[in-house]
Amino acid sequence: MARIRLQDVAERAGVSIKTVSNVVNGKGSITPETRLRVEEAVAHLGYRPNIAARHLRRGQSGMIAVALPELTQPYFAEIASELVRAAQAKQITVLLNQTGGEAESERAISDGIDMPLMDGLIMSPLALTAADLRHRTDAAPLVLLGEHVGDDSPFPHVAMDNRAAAAAATAHLASLGRRRIAAIGAKLPAGPDNALPQETAELRLEGYRRALEDAGLPWDPTLVQTVREFHRADGADAMHALLSLPEPPDAVFCFNDLLALGALRALRDHGLQAPDDVAVIGIDDIEEGRFSSPSLTTIAPDKRAIAETALTLLLENRSEPGHEPRTILVDYELVVRESTAGTGGLP
Amino acid sequence: MARIRLQDVAERAGVSIKTVSNVVNGKGSITPETRLRVEEAVAHLGYRPNIAARHLRRGQSGMIAVALPELTQPYFAEIASELVRAAQAKQITVLLNQTGGEAESERAISDGIDMPLMDGLIMSPLALTAADLRHRTDAAPLVLLGEHVGDDSPFPHVAMDNRAAAAAATAHLASLGRRRIAAIGAKLPAGPDNALPQETAELRLEGYRRALEDAGLPWDPTLVQTVREFHRADGADAMHALLSLPEPPDAVFCFNDLLALGALRALRDHGLQAPDDVAVIGIDDIEEGRFSSPSLTTIAPDKRAIAETALTLLLENRSEPGHEPRTILVDYELVVRESTAGTGGLP
Repeated sequence: MARIRLQDVAERAGVSIKTVSNVVNGKGSITPETRLRVEEAVAHLGYRPNIAARHLRRGQSGMIAVALPELTQPYFAEIASELVRAAQAKQITVLLNQTGGEAESERAISDGIDMPLMDGLIMSPLALTAADLRHRTDAAPLVLLGEHVGDDSPFPHVAMDNRAAAAAATAHLASLGRRRIAAIGAKLPAGPDNALPQETAELRLEGYRRALEDAGLPWDPTLVQTVREFHRADGADAMHALLSLPEPPDAVFCFNDLLALGALRALRDHGLQAPDDVAVIGIDDIEEGRFSSPSLTTIAPDKRAIAETALTLLLENRSEPGHEPRTILVDYELVVRESTAGTGGLP
Repeated sequence: MARIRLQDVAERAGVSIKTVSNVVNGKGSITPETRLRVEEAVAHLGYRPNIAARHLRRGQSGMIAVALPELTQPYFAEIASELVRAAQAKQITVLLNQTGGEAESERAISDGIDMPLMDGLIMSPLALTAADLRHRTDAAPLVLLGEHVGDDSPFPHVAMDNRAAAAAATAHLASLGRRRIAAIGAKLPAGPDNALPQETAELRLEGYRRALEDAGLPWDPTLVQTVREFHRADGADAMHALLSLPEPPDAVFCFNDLLALGALRALRDHGLQAPDDVAVIGIDDIEEGRFSSPSLTTIAPDKRAIAETALTLLLENRSEPGHEPRTILVDYELVVRESTAGTGGLP
């Protein structure tokens, strides 16, 4: 088979060679529709630009680093997969780094020590804030994900409106007529053992509190469970504690899906069921919650949009240094499943 | 605080400076006990060798690449985390690459195109075999994980005895008195859409078949369900198909935990329960199965041993090129939980 040239792609897509070149090289301003036509032509013809030569010419490696706290958190694994997918479509290779949420790891990767030759970094920091990162020694572009960033980020930033998402979760429970709505996932006082994403917990607690007020429900501190980490075991422990209260809750808002899945497990250990005894909702929409018994009601952030937005911001930043940093909030939606809506009579 | 020197570590560990140096630099032959003593002293004193200088001196980057098919498979995410943990203890940074099980990605990473400067590669290939990798163009050491390797690997190789593990799973179901034991996870005929780990499926099917024979149970092809991928949705679909048979199974061996979790979900959709109606067992021991309702009986491979063995083989290989390639089989154990043993009366 003859080598596919830029011109072949241009002909199939019905655009100029220059436009194809811009799309392939991530340059210029292209309408989404044109980009789609070119990408379809590239895929159909199996066009492969000479990547190594292109990168050399541009002084780039074609690789970006993605640094996330924990890949055994399904939420982060799903974000990582979306980032790999989005980057692959642009013929960019992603190398992933698991920081464990430790300051030293986050600093090493953001300073470029652990990522020589990377064209850029997408990081979800837990230990460091944007302010801590301001004086990083690496010049490669940086895009931040999540809440642990601070208000005055010198770097582009992609997040969800966590207060609003938490309020929506709590309001859903109130709309079912639940009156004793507990929360699992508040932060412990800061300490060496406290691996919790602090800002996430704070923002979600604020949203919970606001939604209680809006529903005319009292704030009851005994219904707010702190946790050490956002893991299944922490959710189970917190639910056990709530069920041992003199007056247990009739609904629980968990600050992520893993906590909620642990809470569902604890209910079963007590011979109780969701939603009949206690309705349960989480945040993240990890695949596990679609298959759990009962399936898990959740707030689903648009993970694909998070990944694609972060990558777009990184590439903009790469081609135009000094680009004004931006914070972009992605959408989320309430996904109602059995853990709050019931099964219609199945066990 | 004064800078901690090699000598301080040697004094605390009660060994020579040379021994500490060998441990820290991954050289020489060290007994596990001595290594442990030195590593404890390193950790206690907070000794940090000048890593950049050390790597430069040795012509190494201190980074290794780990290439896995899918990070949204909890099994691979857990293996990745164990590898990161094991490498961190040796002050080695892990960069992860998600291949999607695609030949092109696997070739790019094994040829070093996507991993310049890496000191070595640990890969779980799906598309390529060891024979395909024999002529890779990168000189960095390579260690292979899993079954898709072939018998005559020129590279060190870490795996579980999949036939024996599958036979153990099936024998467990037979030991409970189950007589119609189905299997979910056999491979479809090869094709472009077939993303299944072929060898894994074949070996596990062989083990299942052997255990049926050993238990004096007939081989019934209608009880063997093929799947496209080892995902929850495939397990649910296969269980729906089994339950629509004129004579449904009373037990199911699923070739991994995700399939089993999908199968449990399908049982619930039919108003059935495990183990009363159908006993269910998986393989992998992912954390999700410890918290599912019912909790999942499984075959647990020693994931920590897989990670530590792979890393040790890589480092041996690094320090002694031409080291005879070895295949190391790691242990596994049967972990009995509610999906086969019941709950003692809870719902």
